[in-house]
Amino acid sequence: MLKLCRKYLNWIQNSVFEGDITESKLKELLASAKKIMDLNTDSIIVFKSRDQYWLDKEIIGQERGSTINFI
Amino acid sequence: MLKLCRKYLNWIQNSVFEGDITESKLKELLASAKKIMDLNTDSIIVFKSRDQYWLDKEIIGQERGSTINFI
Repeated sequence: MLKLCRKYLNWIQNSVFEGDITESKLKELLASAKKIMDLNTDSIIVFKSRDQYWLDKEIIGQERGSTINFI
Repeated sequence: MLKLCRKYLNWIQNSVFEGDITESKLKELLASAKKIMDLNTDSIIVFKSRDQYWLDKEIIGQERGSTINFI
């Protein structure tokens, strides 16, 4: 799941990913995710901001570089 | 940290919390969090939506009831 999500988004913390993604790419990602998750126990929550202006982000502590690959 | 965050927000997934919170309550939460986290290795990322209208949420799989206490 980590590998899949990182194909489309930046990994920012534990099971949290962030990024700009088109609706079609998001559908593709979610379709692939559904194949590997157990829909009875696992979950993905997608927060979509319609406009970047309306979403503030504040980081406390160590920032994980959004474009650094560290695996 | 879980106990602290749940005082102010709803736990929605792993290390992810969500909720309506005032700026002063958020400051209070973050001040308490800083006392128990290691700022060199740990991180908290706060996403703030200025208007609920601008944030869509989509849940795939099992939804964790936002008001259920299960600990």
